Amino acid sequence: MDDFPRPIATVDVALFTLREGALCVLLARRDREPYAGQLALPGGFVHVDEDADTAATAARVLAQKAGVARPYLEQLYTFSGKVRDPRGWSIAVAYYALVPETRLGAPAAGVELVHVDRLPALPFDHERIVATALYRLRGKSTYSALPAYLLPDQFTIQELHQVYQQVIGVRLDKASFRRKIEDQEIVEPVAGERRGGAHRPAQLYRLRTDRKVEFERKI
Amino acid sequence: MDDFPRPIATVDVALFTLREGALCVLLARRDREPYAGQLALPGGFVHVDEDADTAATAARVLAQKAGVARPYLEQLYTFSGKVRDPRGWSIAVAYYALVPETRLGAPAAGVELVHVDRLPALPFDHERIVATALYRLRGKSTYSALPAYLLPDQFTIQELHQVYQQVIGVRLDKASFRRKIEDQEIVEPVAGERRGGAHRPAQLYRLRTDRKVEFERKI
Repeated sequence: MDDFPRPIATVDVALFTLREGALCVLLARRDREPYAGQLALPGGFVHVDEDADTAATAARVLAQKAGVARPYLEQLYTFSGKVRDPRGWSIAVAYYALVPETRLGAPAAGVELVHVDRLPALPFDHERIVATALYRLRGKSTYSALPAYLLPDQFTIQELHQVYQQVIGVRLDKASFRRKIEDQEIVEPVAGERRGGAHRPAQLYRLRTDRKVEFERKI
Repeated sequence: MDDFPRPIATVDVALFTLREGALCVLLARRDREPYAGQLALPGGFVHVDEDADTAATAARVLAQKAGVARPYLEQLYTFSGKVRDPRGWSIAVAYYALVPETRLGAPAAGVELVHVDRLPALPFDHERIVATALYRLRGKSTYSALPAYLLPDQFTIQELHQVYQQVIGVRLDKASFRRKIEDQEIVEPVAGERRGGAHRPAQLYRLRTDRKVEFERKI
């Protein structure tokens, strides 16, 4: 067996959602040292007796600290080293998650949704984790249906257009956006489902489940 | 402090190089249990007293087990769980590395370069790690200069064309490859450096150092 002292092993999660059309990240006030009382990304130690892997740790943390079940969840990057955690040499396997606000549970005490452009100072290297997650989310959004995971199961093309603009952070021409989405065949119309005014109710769409191959599993 | 038993923390590295024009991965025969005597990816425990972070662990492993210094090195993915290592719940932070064969040190005992299409059965989840690394390498190669890290510092466009074909695994039209490479401005001619026959010696190129931003640091 190994004789080496083992690093601390944690999982930290950057959970994104849309609130009033703005991209927000979920922060939780820490209930223990270090940094007790400060807002930080939800996270926790790997529990080797109950977690099958670090994705299970991430799911457990989100359920316990944020009341979120079954979000889109993807491993982001592993942050490590001597100095990032005052408790000692640590490995933090970071994940990011996307969930529509309607699927967020009742807000637990100390949990806040904060606009990604108005983050407070965060402990550990959590600001770097959020920045890395935003970079990944924005990069992938330019060539995939990833932002649709911020919407309810059924949505209009207009809603999809707005969420893409919000996530990528630039204005997108409506007509060419619609054309691209249709070309990529990553969403499909839901037969018979329309919403809105009597004159021209909008067709509802959903993600094509057979086109999720490039994403990781939902948990 | 935490009361939780800590997982084992290792770093595993898939190092790729070209041998006789074929993409190969470096395997090392394990000198201890579990799986003693079997070929596996080089790897090792995080040494909290000497490694600054897991990238430093990866560099140390490559230097010690494969005689490789300063390859292109990028974090790949973190594999974890109860079952992947018979010693117990483990976290393996996996990296992949690219190096020209000319920069490989003298082969250490038990180290072999194996063509990626002719891998033996590997212990742990190392087959999955190699497959994930190949997927990443091939994916990134379609839109970046990544394969150039498999070549010496200076190379001809023809050599670059061949290494792209080898890595991506498809034939690429020579003229349009040259046009794309020139459009992307990720390589630059080395002034006054040419190689080959007296009639039409080929211009030598190198990676533009200012275009490496999308890659991680070289160590």
